[in-house]
Amino acid sequence: MHQYQTLLRISTTGKSFQNITAKIAAIVAECGIETGLCSLFLRHTSASLVIQENADPDVLVDLADFMQKLVPESGKYIHRAEGLDDMPGHIRTVLTSTSENIPINSGHLVLGTWQGIYIWEHRQQNNQRELVVHISGLKSSSS
Amino acid sequence: MHQYQTLLRISTTGKSFQNITAKIAAIVAECGIETGLCSLFLRHTSASLVIQENADPDVLVDLADFMQKLVPESGKYIHRAEGLDDMPGHIRTVLTSTSENIPINSGHLVLGTWQGIYIWEHRQQNNQRELVVHISGLKSSSS
Amino acid sequence: MHQYQTLLRISTTGKSFQNITAKIAAIVAECGIETGLCSLFLRHTSASLVIQENADPDVLVDLADFMQKLVPESGKYIHRAEGLDDMPGHIRTVLTSTSENIPINSGHLVLGTWQGIYIWEHRQQNNQRELVVHISGLKSSSS
Repeated sequence: MHQYQTLLRISTTGKSFQNITAKIAAIVAECGIETGLCSLFLRHTSASLVIQENADPDVLVDLADFMQKLVPESGKYIHRAEGLDDMPGHIRTVLTSTSENIPINSGHLVLGTWQGIYIWEHRQQNNQRELVVHISGLKSSSS
Repeated sequence: MHQYQTLLRISTTGKSFQNITAKIAAIVAECGIETGLCSLFLRHTSASLVIQENADPDVLVDLADFMQKLVPESGKYIHRAEGLDDMPGHIRTVLTSTSENIPINSGHLVLGTWQGIYIWEHRQQNNQRELVVHISGLKSSSS
Repeated sequence: MHQYQTLLRISTTGKSFQNITAKIAAIVAECGIETGLCSLFLRHTSASLVIQENADPDVLVDLADFMQKLVPESGKYIHRAEGLDDMPGHIRTVLTSTSENIPINSGHLVLGTWQGIYIWEHRQQNNQRELVVHISGLKSSSS
């Protein structure tokens, strides 16, 4: 069993979805693990991980629209010191994911045909986000 | 350290919960890992993983009812090409889980007494869903 | 590759957030893994894991307040035998997390500056909750 760990820095442009599938796939390819597990961990409390449709961009528009209504910035929050978009960002993060695990088979992530990996930025401002990628597994069936 | 990986195909009958606890437990028993971690990954964007009460089936009825109201099919979505139940299915998936990890101890999943593992189908039609089960660990305390 | 597994018992005092960051960090320090993965699994269906802001306690107040409104105890649920707070607890668990994975680097959890790990108790009564901590990795770069 081998393992690899790296820190990925992703710039976000305010509220948006950043497709990081290709970046994660490149790390998986580079480490040479044939069969294993790729764990993703986002080091933030107002941005989250989403595994969702990679085909029609309208899905992401509808997702953002739904979340905007479910956790409105006009809500009554006590925690307002960091801006009106901060507390909604925390709640949206809790309702989505901070860590995900995707198995690796034949050297590739076993993502479904329609699955892409996204960082969902919940703050209005641009941010530099940090994602830790931890991979463990075997380099070949015999190693 | 050893690892095992297999693909499980599960037929769903429209919107429903499929209890897959026994199937996962059988894979764990068969692989012979005594102490380790069982990672589950669902390869879909309109079905999700749920670990919930395995005793009273009314819990699942109430869950479905709550989600039906929270993410209604009558909502205004741009993404409608694949049917009115498609976009709600994506949102319901984001609000629940795509991957879960359950430790293995003494050769068994460490599920609590009341925990069952379910695939929650969010589409109206029947589907064939794919779940990747990745297990790593030790076969005995000395291996 | 080495692995460690332990069961943590946490007493909750009714609806509340229990900060378990220091307890998990102590287990990580004790096991001596330098680089690896720490997996957390909560053995319950009406309490959940949350990784959220560790600085301003008002964030947790707002989170609890939001969830109280999103999944009210005054809702119409069929499953009421175990109390009016039980079914809302199940739904709140489904909307949050039962398992999380946090990589370990240089012997420490790679949590972000503002991230704390909490058990979110959704029941009104005090409970004894069980969390399984599974750690795998290398003790040094050469082991």
